[in-house]
Amino acid sequence: MTRVDGRVPDERRPVRITRGWLEHAEGSALIEFGRTRVLCAASVTEGVPRWRRDTGLGWVTAEYAMLPRATTTRSERESVKGRLGGRTMEISRLVGRSLRAVVDVAALGENTIVLDCDVLQADGGTRTAAITGAYVALVDAVRHLERQGVLQGQVIKDSVSAISVGIVDGVPMLDLCYEEDVRAETDMNVVMTGSGRFVEIQGTAEGEPFDRKQLDDLLDLAAAGCAELARVQADALAEELPATPAR
Amino acid sequence: MTRVDGRVPDERRPVRITRGWLEHAEGSALIEFGRTRVLCAASVTEGVPRWRRDTGLGWVTAEYAMLPRATTTRSERESVKGRLGGRTMEISRLVGRSLRAVVDVAALGENTIVLDCDVLQADGGTRTAAITGAYVALVDAVRHLERQGVLQGQVIKDSVSAISVGIVDGVPMLDLCYEEDVRAETDMNVVMTGSGRFVEIQGTAEGEPFDRKQLDDLLDLAAAGCAELARVQADALAEELPATPAR
Amino acid sequence: MTRVDGRVPDERRPVRITRGWLEHAEGSALIEFGRTRVLCAASVTEGVPRWRRDTGLGWVTAEYAMLPRATTTRSERESVKGRLGGRTMEISRLVGRSLRAVVDVAALGENTIVLDCDVLQADGGTRTAAITGAYVALVDAVRHLERQGVLQGQVIKDSVSAISVGIVDGVPMLDLCYEEDVRAETDMNVVMTGSGRFVEIQGTAEGEPFDRKQLDDLLDLAAAGCAELARVQADALAEELPATPAR
Amino acid sequence: MTRVDGRVPDERRPVRITRGWLEHAEGSALIEFGRTRVLCAASVTEGVPRWRRDTGLGWVTAEYAMLPRATTTRSERESVKGRLGGRTMEISRLVGRSLRAVVDVAALGENTIVLDCDVLQADGGTRTAAITGAYVALVDAVRHLERQGVLQGQVIKDSVSAISVGIVDGVPMLDLCYEEDVRAETDMNVVMTGSGRFVEIQGTAEGEPFDRKQLDDLLDLAAAGCAELARVQADALAEELPATPAR
Amino acid sequence: MTRVDGRVPDERRPVRITRGWLEHAEGSALIEFGRTRVLCAASVTEGVPRWRRDTGLGWVTAEYAMLPRATTTRSERESVKGRLGGRTMEISRLVGRSLRAVVDVAALGENTIVLDCDVLQADGGTRTAAITGAYVALVDAVRHLERQGVLQGQVIKDSVSAISVGIVDGVPMLDLCYEEDVRAETDMNVVMTGSGRFVEIQGTAEGEPFDRKQLDDLLDLAAAGCAELARVQADALAEELPATPAR
Amino acid sequence: MTRVDGRVPDERRPVRITRGWLEHAEGSALIEFGRTRVLCAASVTEGVPRWRRDTGLGWVTAEYAMLPRATTTRSERESVKGRLGGRTMEISRLVGRSLRAVVDVAALGENTIVLDCDVLQADGGTRTAAITGAYVALVDAVRHLERQGVLQGQVIKDSVSAISVGIVDGVPMLDLCYEEDVRAETDMNVVMTGSGRFVEIQGTAEGEPFDRKQLDDLLDLAAAGCAELARVQADALAEELPATPAR
Repeated sequence: MTRVDGRVPDERRPVRITRGWLEHAEGSALIEFGRTRVLCAASVTEGVPRWRRDTGLGWVTAEYAMLPRATTTRSERESVKGRLGGRTMEISRLVGRSLRAVVDVAALGENTIVLDCDVLQADGGTRTAAITGAYVALVDAVRHLERQGVLQGQVIKDSVSAISVGIVDGVPMLDLCYEEDVRAETDMNVVMTGSGRFVEIQGTAEGEPFDRKQLDDLLDLAAAGCAELARVQADALAEELPATPAR
Repeated sequence: MTRVDGRVPDERRPVRITRGWLEHAEGSALIEFGRTRVLCAASVTEGVPRWRRDTGLGWVTAEYAMLPRATTTRSERESVKGRLGGRTMEISRLVGRSLRAVVDVAALGENTIVLDCDVLQADGGTRTAAITGAYVALVDAVRHLERQGVLQGQVIKDSVSAISVGIVDGVPMLDLCYEEDVRAETDMNVVMTGSGRFVEIQGTAEGEPFDRKQLDDLLDLAAAGCAELARVQADALAEELPATPAR
Repeated sequence: MTRVDGRVPDERRPVRITRGWLEHAEGSALIEFGRTRVLCAASVTEGVPRWRRDTGLGWVTAEYAMLPRATTTRSERESVKGRLGGRTMEISRLVGRSLRAVVDVAALGENTIVLDCDVLQADGGTRTAAITGAYVALVDAVRHLERQGVLQGQVIKDSVSAISVGIVDGVPMLDLCYEEDVRAETDMNVVMTGSGRFVEIQGTAEGEPFDRKQLDDLLDLAAAGCAELARVQADALAEELPATPAR
Repeated sequence: MTRVDGRVPDERRPVRITRGWLEHAEGSALIEFGRTRVLCAASVTEGVPRWRRDTGLGWVTAEYAMLPRATTTRSERESVKGRLGGRTMEISRLVGRSLRAVVDVAALGENTIVLDCDVLQADGGTRTAAITGAYVALVDAVRHLERQGVLQGQVIKDSVSAISVGIVDGVPMLDLCYEEDVRAETDMNVVMTGSGRFVEIQGTAEGEPFDRKQLDDLLDLAAAGCAELARVQADALAEELPATPAR
Repeated sequence: MTRVDGRVPDERRPVRITRGWLEHAEGSALIEFGRTRVLCAASVTEGVPRWRRDTGLGWVTAEYAMLPRATTTRSERESVKGRLGGRTMEISRLVGRSLRAVVDVAALGENTIVLDCDVLQADGGTRTAAITGAYVALVDAVRHLERQGVLQGQVIKDSVSAISVGIVDGVPMLDLCYEEDVRAETDMNVVMTGSGRFVEIQGTAEGEPFDRKQLDDLLDLAAAGCAELARVQADALAEELPATPAR
Repeated sequence: MTRVDGRVPDERRPVRITRGWLEHAEGSALIEFGRTRVLCAASVTEGVPRWRRDTGLGWVTAEYAMLPRATTTRSERESVKGRLGGRTMEISRLVGRSLRAVVDVAALGENTIVLDCDVLQADGGTRTAAITGAYVALVDAVRHLERQGVLQGQVIKDSVSAISVGIVDGVPMLDLCYEEDVRAETDMNVVMTGSGRFVEIQGTAEGEPFDRKQLDDLLDLAAAGCAELARVQADALAEELPATPAR
């Protein structure tokens, strides 16, 4: 069985991570899952939101958005509409939760890191690319804080990455592109740590409800996919950040 | 091991469904999961949203909201803030998807059913109660359409219900109340059909990430819980709707 | 002359007040004027809004809203529209003023009580039911503060209730239901204290302007109606609040 | 007893009406109640709002607003805040209802007249000045339509004006200025037709509730005041509209 | 060559400035450029916005708006739409910058002056009239502060005024009225100090792009026009402000 | 005199244009002015806005925005704030006007082209880079329409580009970077056609007002700068668009 872009069912798309794509951000990464491109920026600010003050704990949060022409047809800007859509808020919350799962907020101290994940081009899997890329930007921002000597221990407890899986024409598949995503009967996004534990599972039957066997197959695929992504992240982070910003 | 309200880990709270709580709605149900009370109303209108016109297909959607004093301390109204929060939109979308999973929109014809799920009192599990109660209101609205002779077949393909599960102090538990939900390391909402298939799984590690074994235990608990809810729904729907509205 | 629901012109609908309908609120009442049902919740918080700080005075305010399917056809949520309608704001302001008229804010000290009046089912007279029910919830909240020993005197100076009157087909009538309200030439809402003085009068000629004689007749009807409501409130408040919340 | 500005209790402030203050509007009037100045513009458009189409009936509506520095201290613009306040909407609705009470919408045909009432300077009584001035602008707009020969009968059935009354230091007074309004125990706005019938009564106890005798005294004062305003309006409308716009 | 209203190309419309049109504002002026009428109010408040606190510097800002029936056909209110339009914000920012160019904010001390420029009637040139009138209101507000003895030197460094120029049917013209503005190929607004220096130039080719020669001609026209406006401002400010407010 | 980044006063930053950076858009270009990076996408849709229908004319418009971490410190998203800022609207309008100045809308037919200019990284001159890059994206979109054979003549009448000039420490300079822009006494943005005519001039005295001599010097600098940009655009557009999208 071959997929629309020639992959086999358990094959993910090529992933490319360009660290330091932005010069102002404390950490940044342009991540590509095939044709999906997400620009992830980590911004550090001293202090925490009001409701968290004087707890000694830091805060990590995320905002996800899509450029109007990231998609095959142009969508209206949410800033122009004057309100965030449900999908945007849902994904922003997911990305934030996923990263907080691997952060020791006590070690971070009363500092805030905001992860901005802006989709420049979309071809399915934008939220999973966002989580995977944001982790890399986050690590660079934390290293920046380390160099400043303001941390109170190991902030990053584990790595985190995410991948989509789904059942298309009855076949469980890894890392769906847009065309597959639209046709999928079941669609699942799985967020896992580098040590292979689950942070988040969101599975939805778009067509027929699925049974336990199908669920198990999808979880197996996702676990293998996330393990690969963890290696790609580690490789990217092992390199020295170039003095001159990449482009 | 006994829980805060005296239940054993795999025991759900008492569920009570009062059909026809509202006199104007085509279908309605006040559903209670312990102290959680959600008023579900199904409103039928002829026609469908513009993007679906002339397809011959119907539409089912949902809106979830909470009264300001449903909770232990008062929360500001979203109408006063002037915008819907991310949590509200996320749950509204979830309820809508869950009900659409058991509806044959072709049989519905170009009619729209809106399910309003308003939480009058909250003690954990409001979204699962909303889905479970909305199904009952939906069935009554469909029966109303049947009596009018406007349907083109069997609209309801299966029943649907939902329950929460979670790991509290290391123990997998069914149907968390608010106090347990706050303390849970992992929290999962599971939506299933009456025939025992999955419609939606949303699991989140609030504290420690969870492993495959824990996930399997939670899924077992949820499957048993949803099976019981399906029976409660069937019992409620088997009764004749009283001529005089209940209160 | 008999009315649509069999009442005589100066007859109000049966009123039912269920105190303690909510378990979290410091005071609450489900009030019914015939088929109109309003859930009133009183929420106490320490402190007052910024503009009132350091005056030693408390604050009482109200918010009125309607569930989307309280009415015969569904109305869109104001939270979804992103703005409060004029009618909602107007009634919220009216309810707040009416209750403040019987409260000694100095005795309340720097505490705030918010009255949420949510219409679960509407059949005319929702604003008058809201005022009448909110008074009951308010008294229970004040008793709660009394038990905590934080008050500086008698907070409640008098009782307050409200009723609608109107001219339908030339006949002055008490407590209009929706069908009458729509047909009324003149519609008036009257808020009075238990001691028979006026707090607010809002009379509107929907059709023909009215003369002084008609106005006097309406005021007589309203005064009698409010006096009855004051007795119903007193009876409800004379009972002991049940340990187990009502439903 | 003399009032802050030297008037006796049943004396209104000098009223001045300048018709045709605006050159583009089909009707306009700058009305002054003492230092209160409201610019009223009547705009005619062909057609009616969607919900009224194909009824053969016209529509009259009003919008009231205040310039930021109409008041003694500057208030923020509602356009900048991004939402209309409750007071603004309440008064806009009142002005619209008041004018519709004297308009025969069938004679108007499917045309819309919008009355914009913008308070340029405020010193109490802005809503009553708005109603009184808007009537004059409305008549000029209707005469404009008459000259075009598009009306189907007599549009204006009666004149309408409004005045405030209140109890200040125990004394019933006519046409309160701002300083009196702030101190009033009871404040009432009364809208009446030229033939002496009531269109709207809105009375509020700001301090002590009021009794029937006080209410009667206030209504007497208001009736006399509105009768005088009706004469001022008639005088203003009897003059020929100057060819060159006034200023 | 004669223009639509009989002027020659380098002739501005008659300008009339009525100081003290408002009684509450610390400074105010009704300015007329032909049929264009803008009401300018200067409001003084102690203190500065948060971002400027403890700098010892004052702040001057402006808000521009148009009444709905200032124009030949009615426009919807921005307060009703719930958002400011781009044009409104652009002009508000322009007016604020223009006035700040002649203010010594150190001499002002930590005080804020807000200039509200509300267009009562529009016939082209509303933004230039707003700047020219706001300067007069500003001077009166500064004199008010001087009399209170709270200033720390000379606040007003120079005068400032503005005028429009444009190319209509190939001819450079001064102070376009609405009809000319609509037809202009090039439209330019020029803000200059009394000493003849430029504060702001905004030139736009509405039709054909313009060349350097045309630009120079327009700048010459504008410089002459602003010099005249500076004299009109000086004359207006030389008079004593009448004790009784003008109208 | 050397500038902060080593340039001489009349030297612009290196400009780099990458066509086809996006795969879905009908035209796109990533443009860099030094460290400023703007992603420009041209989206073609059939039809025009409602107000332009049945005129036979096309429409070209633009939207400008900045990613939150394009700047040295993070700014809040306008979609999160729920409203567009004045600066955003002002620049969007400027970009749209500039492009329309070189488009023959009759030749375009009833088609719409939207230019989205998203600033990925900001270092001064973002609006001038946006105009310059949007022109390139526009041309590619027009070529796309040409290949489809739907155009009715030559759509692009001339090229258009823009550059900033300013007076820094008394010296007129070309193409200010952010650090210079902040310190500039006068700041001017100039939009010109390839044939050397002006489309838009926006000059602002941020500090001292400027005189005619300074204005002339700035215009000379800008004219030379725009001429160079026109050559860079022409070179970029002379190349064949690569089959495989660039990155």
